[in-house]
Amino acid sequence: MDKIRELGLKGAEKMAKVFGKKKVVVVGDGRVGSSAVFALFQQSWINEVGVIDVVLPGHKDENGEWVKGFNAMHNVEGDALDMNDGASFLNGNGRVVEGCDYSICDDADAVVITSGAPQKPGQTRLELLGANASIVAGVCKQLKSHLNDHCVVIVVSNPCDVLAWVAYKTLGIDSKRVIGSGCVLDSSRLKQEIGDDLGIDYRSVNATIIGEHGDSEVAAYSAASIGTTPIRQYYEEYKGISGAELDAHLEKIHYNVWHSAYDVINLKRATNYAIALSITRICKAILTDEKVILPVSVLCDKHVLGGKAEGVYLSVPSILGANGVEAIVAPEYSKEDTEAVLKSAETLRENCAKVQF
Amino acid sequence: MDKIRELGLKGAEKMAKVFGKKKVVVVGDGRVGSSAVFALFQQSWINEVGVIDVVLPGHKDENGEWVKGFNAMHNVEGDALDMNDGASFLNGNGRVVEGCDYSICDDADAVVITSGAPQKPGQTRLELLGANASIVAGVCKQLKSHLNDHCVVIVVSNPCDVLAWVAYKTLGIDSKRVIGSGCVLDSSRLKQEIGDDLGIDYRSVNATIIGEHGDSEVAAYSAASIGTTPIRQYYEEYKGISGAELDAHLEKIHYNVWHSAYDVINLKRATNYAIALSITRICKAILTDEKVILPVSVLCDKHVLGGKAEGVYLSVPSILGANGVEAIVAPEYSKEDTEAVLKSAETLRENCAKVQF
Amino acid sequence: MDKIRELGLKGAEKMAKVFGKKKVVVVGDGRVGSSAVFALFQQSWINEVGVIDVVLPGHKDENGEWVKGFNAMHNVEGDALDMNDGASFLNGNGRVVEGCDYSICDDADAVVITSGAPQKPGQTRLELLGANASIVAGVCKQLKSHLNDHCVVIVVSNPCDVLAWVAYKTLGIDSKRVIGSGCVLDSSRLKQEIGDDLGIDYRSVNATIIGEHGDSEVAAYSAASIGTTPIRQYYEEYKGISGAELDAHLEKIHYNVWHSAYDVINLKRATNYAIALSITRICKAILTDEKVILPVSVLCDKHVLGGKAEGVYLSVPSILGANGVEAIVAPEYSKEDTEAVLKSAETLRENCAKVQF
Amino acid sequence: MDKIRELGLKGAEKMAKVFGKKKVVVVGDGRVGSSAVFALFQQSWINEVGVIDVVLPGHKDENGEWVKGFNAMHNVEGDALDMNDGASFLNGNGRVVEGCDYSICDDADAVVITSGAPQKPGQTRLELLGANASIVAGVCKQLKSHLNDHCVVIVVSNPCDVLAWVAYKTLGIDSKRVIGSGCVLDSSRLKQEIGDDLGIDYRSVNATIIGEHGDSEVAAYSAASIGTTPIRQYYEEYKGISGAELDAHLEKIHYNVWHSAYDVINLKRATNYAIALSITRICKAILTDEKVILPVSVLCDKHVLGGKAEGVYLSVPSILGANGVEAIVAPEYSKEDTEAVLKSAETLRENCAKVQF
Repeated sequence: MDKIRELGLKGAEKMAKVFGKKKVVVVGDGRVGSSAVFALFQQSWINEVGVIDVVLPGHKDENGEWVKGFNAMHNVEGDALDMNDGASFLNGNGRVVEGCDYSICDDADAVVITSGAPQKPGQTRLELLGANASIVAGVCKQLKSHLNDHCVVIVVSNPCDVLAWVAYKTLGIDSKRVIGSGCVLDSSRLKQEIGDDLGIDYRSVNATIIGEHGDSEVAAYSAASIGTTPIRQYYEEYKGISGAELDAHLEKIHYNVWHSAYDVINLKRATNYAIALSITRICKAILTDEKVILPVSVLCDKHVLGGKAEGVYLSVPSILGANGVEAIVAPEYSKEDTEAVLKSAETLRENCAKVQF
Repeated sequence: MDKIRELGLKGAEKMAKVFGKKKVVVVGDGRVGSSAVFALFQQSWINEVGVIDVVLPGHKDENGEWVKGFNAMHNVEGDALDMNDGASFLNGNGRVVEGCDYSICDDADAVVITSGAPQKPGQTRLELLGANASIVAGVCKQLKSHLNDHCVVIVVSNPCDVLAWVAYKTLGIDSKRVIGSGCVLDSSRLKQEIGDDLGIDYRSVNATIIGEHGDSEVAAYSAASIGTTPIRQYYEEYKGISGAELDAHLEKIHYNVWHSAYDVINLKRATNYAIALSITRICKAILTDEKVILPVSVLCDKHVLGGKAEGVYLSVPSILGANGVEAIVAPEYSKEDTEAVLKSAETLRENCAKVQF
Repeated sequence: MDKIRELGLKGAEKMAKVFGKKKVVVVGDGRVGSSAVFALFQQSWINEVGVIDVVLPGHKDENGEWVKGFNAMHNVEGDALDMNDGASFLNGNGRVVEGCDYSICDDADAVVITSGAPQKPGQTRLELLGANASIVAGVCKQLKSHLNDHCVVIVVSNPCDVLAWVAYKTLGIDSKRVIGSGCVLDSSRLKQEIGDDLGIDYRSVNATIIGEHGDSEVAAYSAASIGTTPIRQYYEEYKGISGAELDAHLEKIHYNVWHSAYDVINLKRATNYAIALSITRICKAILTDEKVILPVSVLCDKHVLGGKAEGVYLSVPSILGANGVEAIVAPEYSKEDTEAVLKSAETLRENCAKVQF
Repeated sequence: MDKIRELGLKGAEKMAKVFGKKKVVVVGDGRVGSSAVFALFQQSWINEVGVIDVVLPGHKDENGEWVKGFNAMHNVEGDALDMNDGASFLNGNGRVVEGCDYSICDDADAVVITSGAPQKPGQTRLELLGANASIVAGVCKQLKSHLNDHCVVIVVSNPCDVLAWVAYKTLGIDSKRVIGSGCVLDSSRLKQEIGDDLGIDYRSVNATIIGEHGDSEVAAYSAASIGTTPIRQYYEEYKGISGAELDAHLEKIHYNVWHSAYDVINLKRATNYAIALSITRICKAILTDEKVILPVSVLCDKHVLGGKAEGVYLSVPSILGANGVEAIVAPEYSKEDTEAVLKSAETLRENCAKVQF
């Protein structure tokens, strides 16, 4: 070893060669995308977070006024620089990289699409479809030639179920590798609402929201449990609530959960933090090959829900691992829950039928 | 135990009684404050993050236009709701609470003040002083009656050195318990810049920015080392750079560090992520009683820098623990570094002299 | 601040005053106790791990020779010194303390009793009862006057169900604060065995071993699920196994789980690592007030299992938090599972009846 | 996707293909090796810990009796089974694998050699050389054909400096990829002893033990600092100790550090826990490509210590990363420290000269 020498590059680049780095790229650096990059950056299991934005130079601010000398690429560059400035406060080795084209995705293990208009106060997710379908399709057309053969694509832009289908159609790859963030966040909200109601940790609540990530979503109480006790039995024994009173109680809990996103949007005009954390949860399952069951939005086949939702993207319990969706593992729900989720499926099927991209 | 019963409240409230919860309150829910709450919320060592904002209902947006039906308290409420929705994705037990008055600080271990106007492109930190001194003084007047006897106050609003002094004067408590976030972030940037330059992990770079958190800051190279090797000796031996060439090289590194905040502001009109992470670093040192040495902004006494900076808040290496600043432990710097930091101290002293609050 | 001064004590001691430190004391420094202290020491949520041993001075070395001047207290002192030597490799602030009397427990949040003879190859856990009951009773008599009013006692010495009852009787405190480590480890083994069988993460397997932590334990398949799918339904749909074939398959899985401890003992003459990790899991639930559901060994009341196991300590799903057992939350099991666990309860009741201490 | 299907293998195997798993193999399952496997298993950044043992079948039990049908391989198998039973209590994805031959090392990123007789009370590390040199050489001969081209070999067996040289000579690979655990642990002890003495976190103490990991080791105070303050200056200013009194004080601290291993061995007849943690520290630096500076034992070249220790393995500050020792970066020590470490080098050179393997 000569004394006067370059000691070599730090971290991520070298790890790519020696051990294989773990990398997620976030497309779209709006409030959701930027918060997701920040949350991913703080994860100890990640080596590199990429961020890109495709909006053309110049943008309109929240009052619709044109802002000169400021564009999405500047924001992306600023975010990367800002976060990397704080890298030494982390335990891990994460770095943020940004780029002006999709070649940044060449070595990604997952790509998260957050581009598109966000929900506004009073607006439903499905009302965003017209504007966002062509944006997501445009992203996917550019992304297509930069996808390696194991990368998993996660669509977060809303309505995420229909847009996951748009991405699947545009990318033309195995449906196992195209998912929507779906009801992972909604289910988390449900677990916490029930946990708080019962004085129990959310980690001991097994409950899932299925169907559309939107107004027709279903709290699948017929398959929910507290520890290993069915949820209705638990409420009856430990809270003394049963029958119609319990129906109303559970419906109220679901109402709170469903309404939570609207509350947040009404209060601060966006939701960004919880969705950012749910993105890290989904990415961790994929990048560390967890094979954990999460209700992401997946393409239903003939085995799911009696085949009646075939061809539709919606959330049902699915095994997530390095290959994306390893399997869909929905239980048999009650007649009521099944009917409700099939109705949700029809809503989504209709939207897929009419969407243009 | 009767079967039909309330099983009790979850988490933070109960922990307060049994084990003593760990709580930080962030004052000001702008971009810095909101990002800081999000970063704190993800720390495993924290139980509760509070967030309050004191701006009256209605506020002006970045173009100076009045926004109806939307105010800071709504934003605070929205942020808390948004983050708590994602609590089940964390390993820890953190919850976010928000409130409309300072009683939320009654049981805090640390209060972080981020209120005030942020730096704009082209603006220096000292130019913010006029606007922000009265805001920070106003915060402190309200905070005063809600400070318990061990709570440490951390001023992040810029210019943070002068505003830490304003907070100290307004609060009238022991200077050990009032600090500015100071050059913790700048030093982190310096460590990374040097580390990347040398191909060495930033954790093996011992280097500190001292003085003002602003344009007159000093990269104290005379006390810097790589591992246990003095930095100049290291560059000479391993990179073959010495003398004037090395001076220029090190100056260029400091220029990049110093200019980094301006770069980020020019690119995205704010810095929020790295400062948020540096806030978590400072809070962790205090709440877990680390007694680690960090260059926070502290009130210099007669022992520091030969007594010539007495009465001025500026950054020098200090031991941070449960009591705030346990001791200032600045080394003897070279003549050049000492002169530079004393010049920085004079700038700060002059600003303190003229500030009104 | 004077320059020439003591800067004060580090860490744990000071934290006790300011924030309330988190402390677990392990009684008994044999292979289980020593491994438990090592695992606890590495947890980021703990501040102090205490370790004491009550064995009288003098012991035989590995060649069967009597060693003068070497006793259990030396081992305890050596373990504490050895571990603290490595404290700087941890992220947290843990320190190990050891002591010669039970005053070390005065400020503990949990005390873990591991004292007693370990299982030998071919021996059942119940065969240890005669020797270990008086040891555990002896520990509890000394511990009694050093228990603060929130400390939870966890009995790990085997047979842990009967010995938890012995501890409860000897200590004379609320049964909520005396538990056995029970089937937490067995349930973990079951989750992994099922998870490996199905290619699913153990975190998505909800399955519990209940009853005695020993030969009469019951794999409560009637309340088990994969995600939210009942386990039998899951095997039928995704593995094509049903009826008697499935019965045999599930029985084989339980056999492997039940036999695992015997396998380990036959191979290395002790089990210490997995039990050490299960101790950290139980302590974390208590010290961080998780209110999570775990199958620890608890005193059954008239509400559990139809009241037929009243007065017996055995494992059933229970909510663990800062107060110990917040509630027992067993579901209604199938007739077969219920009969099996009641038979297990009878075995334990008989052992309690005949044990002398 | 067909419903009746194998859902695929869990975790580690699949990750190997998709992302590249991180794997360390520990050779020798005695007290040090077993504790190291347990500590590595608990690290979130590792996917697989391998453990093998080469001791021949048969051993004496604690009563000195020969045990048939029980051998080191049984212990290895038992340890792996025992730890994997507790895998579900970890946050990460670690699994322990064990094997009967060195093919287990084929895909390892690091191999840690702990085989050999441990230190006994009163014995120095160099006195172990005769017995352990042929054991380590034997390990390396078998290991040689199973080393991939990036695997780093870490020798922990004592005397680790001489045995690292033995391993280097036997393996015949680049010296960058063969290191001794050296003074990483001793330096940790020194940091803590100084930190406790000053009431400062060990993370703010920059101090290194260099030379032999043994009796001739040197506390390199001439290059030590507290934060960025030289250690002597710090003691003078903040503790009022200087001159000969300070010499004695620092010597006493080093005596405590040096004597610590002897204390532990006298108390419990082994050191295993702190060394296990130091092994995890070294492995993390390599497997996550940290490029951090640690005082591992490395082959000195002509640039180190004026070339006077060329050809000798001893501890000096070195950059550790994915390639093993990226560079040796020792500072210029004082005349006294340099002379002491060169004396230490001579002791080691003499031992290398006479060792047979």
